Amino acid sequence: MQTSHTNVKALTFDVFGTVVDWYSSIVIEGEKFGNTHSIDIDWAQFALKWRAGYGPAMDKVRRGELPWQNIDALHRLILDNLLAEFKIVGLSETHKDHLNRVWHRLKPWPDAVNGLARLRKRYIVATLSNGNIALLTNMAKFAGLPWDCILSAELTQHYKPDPEVYQTAAALLGLSPNEVMMVAAHPGDLRASQAVGFQTALVPRPLEYGPDNVREVTAHASDLVAGDFNELADLLGVK
Amino acid sequence: MQTSHTNVKALTFDVFGTVVDWYSSIVIEGEKFGNTHSIDIDWAQFALKWRAGYGPAMDKVRRGELPWQNIDALHRLILDNLLAEFKIVGLSETHKDHLNRVWHRLKPWPDAVNGLARLRKRYIVATLSNGNIALLTNMAKFAGLPWDCILSAELTQHYKPDPEVYQTAAALLGLSPNEVMMVAAHPGDLRASQAVGFQTALVPRPLEYGPDNVREVTAHASDLVAGDFNELADLLGVK
Repeated sequence: MQTSHTNVKALTFDVFGTVVDWYSSIVIEGEKFGNTHSIDIDWAQFALKWRAGYGPAMDKVRRGELPWQNIDALHRLILDNLLAEFKIVGLSETHKDHLNRVWHRLKPWPDAVNGLARLRKRYIVATLSNGNIALLTNMAKFAGLPWDCILSAELTQHYKPDPEVYQTAAALLGLSPNEVMMVAAHPGDLRASQAVGFQTALVPRPLEYGPDNVREVTAHASDLVAGDFNELADLLGVK
Repeated sequence: MQTSHTNVKALTFDVFGTVVDWYSSIVIEGEKFGNTHSIDIDWAQFALKWRAGYGPAMDKVRRGELPWQNIDALHRLILDNLLAEFKIVGLSETHKDHLNRVWHRLKPWPDAVNGLARLRKRYIVATLSNGNIALLTNMAKFAGLPWDCILSAELTQHYKPDPEVYQTAAALLGLSPNEVMMVAAHPGDLRASQAVGFQTALVPRPLEYGPDNVREVTAHASDLVAGDFNELADLLGVK
């Protein structure tokens, strides 16, 4: 297997769930926010429902039922519905906007910063997320993620898994698709990148949905499977 | 003046000439390339002519006389003409491509890496160059430039000084134009960014065209004028 990766020049990373732990980040910040604003709800349920709204909202954009809008805007659409559902009233626009931007302040998985720093020694490491450029840039600064380049579905006005997202990323990096390896916890993302010629690495994150919702990742024919980013660096022979 | 910058959240940098010293980088690498390939020409003249072809080539794209193409492609168009003019024959495609990518391997001005690292402590620091994303990403890796985000005219298929380049950069950063400060050695770039509402900082680079072509920068009504990036950090109060 090792020899097939020798032409890889860049690694592109899914971010939500693969690089950062959105579930515990939102629960922890939500509980603090709740204490400050006297909101007594189950923040774990709130986080899971917020995330659950994400795929369907993007699908509406992908199908043309909603005009193009970035993830900040889609997160806000979902948030406004959740505030009604959870009967949270009286928040100012400033507070709603601050809460919506919790997605800019997600914490990396424990291996992520060190693993990326190792991988960066040999490869270009870039985001390839449905998150918008501002969100990813702010998150990188907040979390100390050492990206060489911030790439986003936003640059194509398509959302993953549309092929345009992967094709444009390779083109912007000046590489052919098989010189790029997609790294993700989600088989659907890897399959879509494979379909346009990317190499793939699966890094399962069984705790993505929290300790009460451990997910078994469906087996997937990826080029590599690694337990975390340090193991991915090991498999690629990067010290 | 100081108070007017308190709302600045991001600094966007012109790159060729402002961050990196294209002239001496190309002369030094050209001379080595010439020794290897037995090419005895004046590499200073070669560098100056290559750069002189850049503005007119972009203007052809801006006027629609050439279809959209990125700077790697425009540099190559100009290079092919120069190889003929300097009667350089017999180079393989691999060698021509390597020479063309000298623009990915430009050296930063001596203050650039340290100054950017300081500015990055308080601001988002991003490129905003006519150079393409791959060129800027490779250059950052080569030169150790600590960008938070790589933004390029390529993302708009317009070239500076077209307003779309600046407007799109602010939008991608999730900021209003007056929350962004354009940093450049070139008044035309600053004027165009000002026209869409950016704040501006002029950092003259009198040696941009080499020690035999010292340029006086025309006075320009920028918000700040700094001798280098460390002085810019001083003026903005960043330690």
